[in-house]
Amino acid sequence: MLKIQFYTAFPIDNNDHLVLSSDKNHPANLIPELCRKFWTLGWVTGTGGGASIRTGDLVYLAPSGVQKELIQPEDIYVLELSKQQDPKKRIYLRSPRDFKPSQCTPLFMAAFKKRNAGCCIHTHSQWAVLITLLLEQNAHNQMVFEINNIEQIKAFGRGWKQQSSLGYHDTLRIPVIENTPFEEDLTESLEACMDEFPDTYAVLVRRHGLYVWGETVSKAKQQAESLDYLFQLAVEMRKLNIPWLSDIAPVA
Amino acid sequence: MLKIQFYTAFPIDNNDHLVLSSDKNHPANLIPELCRKFWTLGWVTGTGGGASIRTGDLVYLAPSGVQKELIQPEDIYVLELSKQQDPKKRIYLRSPRDFKPSQCTPLFMAAFKKRNAGCCIHTHSQWAVLITLLLEQNAHNQMVFEINNIEQIKAFGRGWKQQSSLGYHDTLRIPVIENTPFEEDLTESLEACMDEFPDTYAVLVRRHGLYVWGETVSKAKQQAESLDYLFQLAVEMRKLNIPWLSDIAPVA
Amino acid sequence: MLKIQFYTAFPIDNNDHLVLSSDKNHPANLIPELCRKFWTLGWVTGTGGGASIRTGDLVYLAPSGVQKELIQPEDIYVLELSKQQDPKKRIYLRSPRDFKPSQCTPLFMAAFKKRNAGCCIHTHSQWAVLITLLLEQNAHNQMVFEINNIEQIKAFGRGWKQQSSLGYHDTLRIPVIENTPFEEDLTESLEACMDEFPDTYAVLVRRHGLYVWGETVSKAKQQAESLDYLFQLAVEMRKLNIPWLSDIAPVA
Amino acid sequence: MLKIQFYTAFPIDNNDHLVLSSDKNHPANLIPELCRKFWTLGWVTGTGGGASIRTGDLVYLAPSGVQKELIQPEDIYVLELSKQQDPKKRIYLRSPRDFKPSQCTPLFMAAFKKRNAGCCIHTHSQWAVLITLLLEQNAHNQMVFEINNIEQIKAFGRGWKQQSSLGYHDTLRIPVIENTPFEEDLTESLEACMDEFPDTYAVLVRRHGLYVWGETVSKAKQQAESLDYLFQLAVEMRKLNIPWLSDIAPVA
Repeated sequence: MLKIQFYTAFPIDNNDHLVLSSDKNHPANLIPELCRKFWTLGWVTGTGGGASIRTGDLVYLAPSGVQKELIQPEDIYVLELSKQQDPKKRIYLRSPRDFKPSQCTPLFMAAFKKRNAGCCIHTHSQWAVLITLLLEQNAHNQMVFEINNIEQIKAFGRGWKQQSSLGYHDTLRIPVIENTPFEEDLTESLEACMDEFPDTYAVLVRRHGLYVWGETVSKAKQQAESLDYLFQLAVEMRKLNIPWLSDIAPVA
Repeated sequence: MLKIQFYTAFPIDNNDHLVLSSDKNHPANLIPELCRKFWTLGWVTGTGGGASIRTGDLVYLAPSGVQKELIQPEDIYVLELSKQQDPKKRIYLRSPRDFKPSQCTPLFMAAFKKRNAGCCIHTHSQWAVLITLLLEQNAHNQMVFEINNIEQIKAFGRGWKQQSSLGYHDTLRIPVIENTPFEEDLTESLEACMDEFPDTYAVLVRRHGLYVWGETVSKAKQQAESLDYLFQLAVEMRKLNIPWLSDIAPVA
Repeated sequence: MLKIQFYTAFPIDNNDHLVLSSDKNHPANLIPELCRKFWTLGWVTGTGGGASIRTGDLVYLAPSGVQKELIQPEDIYVLELSKQQDPKKRIYLRSPRDFKPSQCTPLFMAAFKKRNAGCCIHTHSQWAVLITLLLEQNAHNQMVFEINNIEQIKAFGRGWKQQSSLGYHDTLRIPVIENTPFEEDLTESLEACMDEFPDTYAVLVRRHGLYVWGETVSKAKQQAESLDYLFQLAVEMRKLNIPWLSDIAPVA
Repeated sequence: MLKIQFYTAFPIDNNDHLVLSSDKNHPANLIPELCRKFWTLGWVTGTGGGASIRTGDLVYLAPSGVQKELIQPEDIYVLELSKQQDPKKRIYLRSPRDFKPSQCTPLFMAAFKKRNAGCCIHTHSQWAVLITLLLEQNAHNQMVFEINNIEQIKAFGRGWKQQSSLGYHDTLRIPVIENTPFEEDLTESLEACMDEFPDTYAVLVRRHGLYVWGETVSKAKQQAESLDYLFQLAVEMRKLNIPWLSDIAPVA
């Protein structure tokens, strides 16, 4: 009985070769390294947040409820992006022994499917949460963080399928969606937001955190760091009564 | 004379095997690793704060007055939970050579005895102290930190002997007890507070810090990190005039 | 065809010996070490900022768009300062394989050519950006950060070709230039600012960050750290309504 | 000629054995380790601040103007406390090759001579500087930082030659002295302040930083950390309009 259970959950061929590599740039090595850094940055406090990488059709995912600074390559899930017809019945090519899949999985998948992203990062950064608490709905009933005339804005691509980056005078816009009691229930509104803001590389979740993606791990991380920098800067600007938008250049 | 003293305090059989292990998940290895992390987080500044782990009947404790980032496995005390009839006369199964037992010992014991916790963490975090300075007594002469509608609240269990976690709309409540001149004198009010708030996983001590526990080391650490995150967030919210409780969902 | 391209971009003799050294004080080893430290300080978030070192006629430069905490000696560019007649056509003695030269190159060069600096550091520190947001133009249409009567001011040299340092009562002055859409376009105003403020060791770029240089790596780093310390202190002073200039000594 | 100069400054018998030890608790190993930690805490930014240790009659000192996180045991000065009749002509038992003695030397010596301290720490912490900017002179023309009813106060000894520690309700008092253009000129007022406040373990220097000492390295570091914790807490309390002194217990 125990043996049957074991075989069902963890077949002898558990595809461990998919996560064991001596290449430090292998996704199963990069995710633990990223998570260690994110822990020191306060982005994945108390097991919140995480990161996922896609190479070709393979998606690598950190497990749920794990101390993020302690994740090991053998803790990583792998699935095939093209074979996930039913989001309620994920088929994993490779599963770790002692964990559960992350509730963020469908949200990471949205970035891979709808944007062809190579990496998606989710943070619970306090600066991201504070920004969503400082924003109000605009005339179109949208909530959008907007900032311009800050050099760090150049770290962001101008939009989907566009080569160039935002310029110093451009206005960076990050839309905000409402939080939901269950994280997987964010998927629908996240995907709708990606449709409404086709050029965004990130979506804030109100009173929760941030989802940010990029074509590569490096680009996703660069944008995650730059957004957190801008969120912290914007909170400090608010404390000092400095507006987020200025008319050095016309607001786009 | 000197020899006799030595033998009395440190018998030849000092049960060193209880703290020497090559398993990185052994409590005597985990406590030093946790304390190093807590030092970088500012939780155990100046030898304040600490952590204790229970496995079965054995309780592992860091010593008093030690630089927390330098603690070694051989510095750890071990005692049997079931054999501590008299709190004034602790019997240690294993004692380090050069230290004194921590004054926090009876408070850690309260979490083990009254909650069957597997780990208890004590921090002097400045955010915890500031929260206790910002709170006022409620109509029942209690002081309770309350926050709702923040994703990180989900890191907390719904209560003792309950499997599920708090939801996003739930209100996290952390009671506050008064500080006392001697740390061990907190024991009575801590235990009374645990009785009054049977579902809490943590108690704030006014102008002092936090006691937080969990079924496992991982769970206790997750809750300690998440509380500190919420305390810091709440202090920033106060500076920005954002209330801790909101009516997105009815306040429970 | 591929082979020809390869040879053009990366000749067999790529002068790799210029960046491979077992001496930890070799510029190609120091730049990665500095960048790792700067990343932890939040100065080079999201690939922004950087550092360049000059020894004799050789200038060592970090590449563009790279995660700064991951830079390796083999990623470093080398050029000869005396052989850069045309800033639009840089000739590199040694180039890494996979990168582009940094847009900061002409700004680093300005510090080497106009000041004979041995090291120039560029940060995107949020404190530097906030200072530029808190300043207003003075009567001469200049924007200048000024602070006095703080011990850390002694970390700065009194001026170009002067041996002594600023004193405690002296006023440290850091001029601010406007930011431009393309970083290389800052060169002209940076050089003009260096002419207008012949004694300054640093220039702030509005809503962007800081350029700071020194005779040696150690001196440049000391001044970069001290400026960031003063910027953060000054932001906190503003929050607490403490003026940056005081009359303990007459303002110079 | 060169040879003679060399012999004069660095005799063949340079007493290198005084700083080379495999014991990690040797002062010449502890000072570099402390300075690395202090750098990450922001206490010794830009070569400011430092630490000195005394064992018996030997005093170990870090050199001047060095990147504090890079100090090595061979960079340490050693002198004999009892043989420094003339503070203007220090006699060093052992000197490093490439450095100058620290300007803090006479201030460290004051703690060793007047208090028989085993370790003295000097920080430029921004929190210490801010505290001195927030204080005003009292009725006796003194400037004294006072805080009570915070648990961390227990980290401080009750006073010179007294075994016990301050209690929770006690008021911790740290006197402030004026800064001077040259650091060694602080010596006189520091020594006068130690006479005026015979029980203090620390003295703040206005717009400069902190000197703090202890019987042992561990005790000095514990008090330095605890003071910095209290200074940061007090700055945050001021921002939130919470007074530093409260009447939970009568103010001593």
